Amino acid sequence: MALPTDNLLALFRAVVDIESVSRDEARLADEVEATLGGLDHLEVLRDGNAVVARTNLGRPERVIIAGHLDTVPVAGNLPSQVSDGPGGVIVHGRGTADMKGGVTVMLWLARRLDAPARDVTWIFYDCEEIDVASNGLGRLVAHHPDWVAGASLAVLMEPTSALIEGGCQGTMRFDITTTGLAAHSARSWLGHNAIHDMAEVIDRVREFDCGEVEVDGLVFREGLNATMIQGGLAGNVIPDSCEVQINYRFAPDKTADEALALMTRWFDRWTLNVLDLSPAARPGLDEPAAADFVAAVGGEPRPKYGWTDVARFSSLGIPAVNFGPADSGKAHAVDEFCPVSDLDACAAALARWLAPAHRLV
Amino acid sequence: MALPTDNLLALFRAVVDIESVSRDEARLADEVEATLGGLDHLEVLRDGNAVVARTNLGRPERVIIAGHLDTVPVAGNLPSQVSDGPGGVIVHGRGTADMKGGVTVMLWLARRLDAPARDVTWIFYDCEEIDVASNGLGRLVAHHPDWVAGASLAVLMEPTSALIEGGCQGTMRFDITTTGLAAHSARSWLGHNAIHDMAEVIDRVREFDCGEVEVDGLVFREGLNATMIQGGLAGNVIPDSCEVQINYRFAPDKTADEALALMTRWFDRWTLNVLDLSPAARPGLDEPAAADFVAAVGGEPRPKYGWTDVARFSSLGIPAVNFGPADSGKAHAVDEFCPVSDLDACAAALARWLAPAHRLV
Repeated sequence: MALPTDNLLALFRAVVDIESVSRDEARLADEVEATLGGLDHLEVLRDGNAVVARTNLGRPERVIIAGHLDTVPVAGNLPSQVSDGPGGVIVHGRGTADMKGGVTVMLWLARRLDAPARDVTWIFYDCEEIDVASNGLGRLVAHHPDWVAGASLAVLMEPTSALIEGGCQGTMRFDITTTGLAAHSARSWLGHNAIHDMAEVIDRVREFDCGEVEVDGLVFREGLNATMIQGGLAGNVIPDSCEVQINYRFAPDKTADEALALMTRWFDRWTLNVLDLSPAARPGLDEPAAADFVAAVGGEPRPKYGWTDVARFSSLGIPAVNFGPADSGKAHAVDEFCPVSDLDACAAALARWLAPAHRLV
Repeated sequence: MALPTDNLLALFRAVVDIESVSRDEARLADEVEATLGGLDHLEVLRDGNAVVARTNLGRPERVIIAGHLDTVPVAGNLPSQVSDGPGGVIVHGRGTADMKGGVTVMLWLARRLDAPARDVTWIFYDCEEIDVASNGLGRLVAHHPDWVAGASLAVLMEPTSALIEGGCQGTMRFDITTTGLAAHSARSWLGHNAIHDMAEVIDRVREFDCGEVEVDGLVFREGLNATMIQGGLAGNVIPDSCEVQINYRFAPDKTADEALALMTRWFDRWTLNVLDLSPAARPGLDEPAAADFVAAVGGEPRPKYGWTDVARFSSLGIPAVNFGPADSGKAHAVDEFCPVSDLDACAAALARWLAPAHRLV
């Protein structure tokens, strides 16, 4: 079966209806490879379930446009369904928001833009929705650093409602454990209550001033939250242990090391067990390629709050922005959806930037 | 196999070595029934795995001496082992402290005291260590109220290191749930953090003044503790729910209803989901039968902190005290043990009280 490449809505639905939960992207990757193979203007490369297609026109500048093929698990929300919205047709189903709308726009443009003003490297990759060690973009960069080298900007087509979102917050997760002494609750004074001690940790979390931080003209809002808590042995035993998981989302004015140092100082009465730590990415909108992109798309760039692979590009020295169809607030939701008008808007904006002289058929 | 009734240590080890985890007491109950059956001075009755043996000598007063046959699950601590302690032989193993020492003393005395000055009802019962609805003493009282009616005092042979412990604390367990609004932790201000709200509940627990309360001459110390906590969905989601379980151990100056009302007022900002509520028991040491018992045993009575079936007798209008061999602090411990000297002391004290003129063989 080949993907229907003559109609944007049909293409979108076909991409959505090929289930591609993380680690199970082979079929969709095969379709992407087949859809972009055999075109004179594209060189197609593959690494596992990641597919790369690039023009080699000798342009003075090269940009990356990237998106992941995988979704979180299906929850009875496939195959796709359509409804009428105020702005036209809306497509519902797993992956419509995160992020097969972006993948569809990429496929649509990659086939059509046969003479872009900038050379383009289109990257479709796997395993973004699971642990960071499995990330297909990370693997691809490790196996083939030359496939991404030299790009002046990366556009990651994560959902942003077709607005530019610059940079991304960093994220750090860590555990704090309080330790007590178990005793029968009828003689509680013989023990020491670890849950009671945990109240001081939570109070410390709440006292943290999550301010707003301006970076490269965008205002980022931080967050410090206890996200999971677990403690106690039984209803009649003084708990000897309580564990809380804390998530710090930090603005790109801080490096990962600075965020770690800040948390270590803030919680200096306890020991932090760091679970993960991912750097933030500066918006980088003052870079020339990004400024051109902003001008072509129009509108006012916003900060990106969620962590995305723009941080990975940023750490490679490649400025990166998020720009894609659908509302990020619907990512992973059972009722996720994407308006077709967002696909149109993203495709048109990218075409203006990449090939101002090109008339899309 | 008959129990060896000529030697207290041998009897104790035999009772301990018959595994009798809750709901699996049939074999031990059979042995108890066989050991006390066929004696002229005892009428033996049975209800399920509970065995009752009583004298019917027409004495002006009747007392109950009771103990449960079951233990918590075996944890590699059977068969019993002995060691030399400073005060003589110590027996180690599941049930030695809670409460086969008491059961052994009861069997020992029930056979020997053939002409007590008070009529005695010996009650051996099942399923004390599990949910209160399964309690064998509760079932026995429901099936045969006449088997316990009219007693002037009940001695429950739970471990007290051979000292009289009067009354018992009441206990109430309840949940409090805080409710938030889930959101991605990168945009935490769109949600509401239920774990953060829980800190106020825990602080309220800690603020409660667990004072000392004197009742009938004994000083009880209360306790209010969070014993279990659970909350959160994932490390990157603002938690929409957090649940804490709280245990209030209250002195016998309060009825169960008063304890409930006090907690409801103290936590008036939240809704209490009551899991269980068991009344306290007043020491009742001013009752004549109890005063005689105290005089016979000697020593200074102490308050009982843990909840025991004395509260059940108390609610039936029968004053009740705890008095038995072994340290209650070792109940349920893997390394539980009982000094044989405690068995001797308890047997001698009970004999002085029940049959001052009787010389034990």
